[in-house]
Amino acid sequence: MNYRAVETTEEYVARLETGADWRAEIESLAEAVDADAAWFTALGAVQDAELWFYDQDECEYHPVEFDEPLEVASCTGNVSRLEGDRFAHTHVVLSDDEGTAYAGHLNEATIWAGEVHMRAFEEPLAREYDETTELDLWL
Amino acid sequence: MNYRAVETTEEYVARLETGADWRAEIESLAEAVDADAAWFTALGAVQDAELWFYDQDECEYHPVEFDEPLEVASCTGNVSRLEGDRFAHTHVVLSDDEGTAYAGHLNEATIWAGEVHMRAFEEPLAREYDETTELDLWL
Amino acid sequence: MNYRAVETTEEYVARLETGADWRAEIESLAEAVDADAAWFTALGAVQDAELWFYDQDECEYHPVEFDEPLEVASCTGNVSRLEGDRFAHTHVVLSDDEGTAYAGHLNEATIWAGEVHMRAFEEPLAREYDETTELDLWL
Repeated sequence: MNYRAVETTEEYVARLETGADWRAEIESLAEAVDADAAWFTALGAVQDAELWFYDQDECEYHPVEFDEPLEVASCTGNVSRLEGDRFAHTHVVLSDDEGTAYAGHLNEATIWAGEVHMRAFEEPLAREYDETTELDLWL
Repeated sequence: MNYRAVETTEEYVARLETGADWRAEIESLAEAVDADAAWFTALGAVQDAELWFYDQDECEYHPVEFDEPLEVASCTGNVSRLEGDRFAHTHVVLSDDEGTAYAGHLNEATIWAGEVHMRAFEEPLAREYDETTELDLWL
Repeated sequence: MNYRAVETTEEYVARLETGADWRAEIESLAEAVDADAAWFTALGAVQDAELWFYDQDECEYHPVEFDEPLEVASCTGNVSRLEGDRFAHTHVVLSDDEGTAYAGHLNEATIWAGEVHMRAFEEPLAREYDETTELDLWL
């Protein structure tokens, strides 16, 4: 296992803007507060969503799209540097009007309402290519 | 995006009481420690549950009820002031004995067992009516 | 309700090792940093999983097994002492390649990739047998 102690420089709450993109808004928050590494949890609702699923045999993502209003019942993720840019690695659990849950890696989603708690770390986190999983991981 | 830095005054863990209401217990914790704003995550199990789904066209909630034992696989939320009272905005992911997941905005649920981590903030959060979504949001 | 204030001694991020067991890795992290009590959230993917569901009438767990790659869309839990050992009480929401969500109490799962945020507390948490639920709870 690869672990490190981190120091929280600042802690934030944010309300995401209706109509904007969920993941881009979280990356904008990190940008606004100049955080190169952060951890967040969030909740809210979206107007649509594109989840990505990773095929562990093919080592590639494929998208699953939802074109309907969904609750964001859970959102957990972190901000790191990926090829120089801030990247919010974001996993969510969504639900429809019957309570049925859908979940996975969030690529994009149009915000209806969103509430985020973010802890910004002093130490940067940088992703690099990992040969075993063919994913970009902290190394 | 609307964001603010927050200062954590105190951090708590709590065990929720069997037979009490999940959301009310979290609001009682906030009351007990005199927190006007807080963020929490939790896990546990409930004996029943009422989720609410927000219809983004009609701008109103409708309930979906579950009358069976369910795991609380995820619970994320925050405490703020809503019309003077402490309100725990609570989203959950529940699951039944086959592992099927249900999720959404939690109105009420009878606790079987529950474990909560809460961070209380120095700055209050107050909800007010938002015209676009017809929800009570932090403004 | 049973609650207590806790003091965070240190905060960590960790990357879980591909091929190892998800819960054991989190317990190893707690062991490595000498934490007797902690709270964590995490995300990632696994190659298989065994969830446990608690039958509130029979007061016993029964397993549900998944033998396929799954995303870990949400993971919330805590570390405490149970009969002397460190125990990571771990709830997860998993999802398959169509976005279908499964959720519950995680017993074991083979890691594909995992990212964890853990807060270690100064105060220990110890579980003891609770007569009402027949679960080991913090008392």
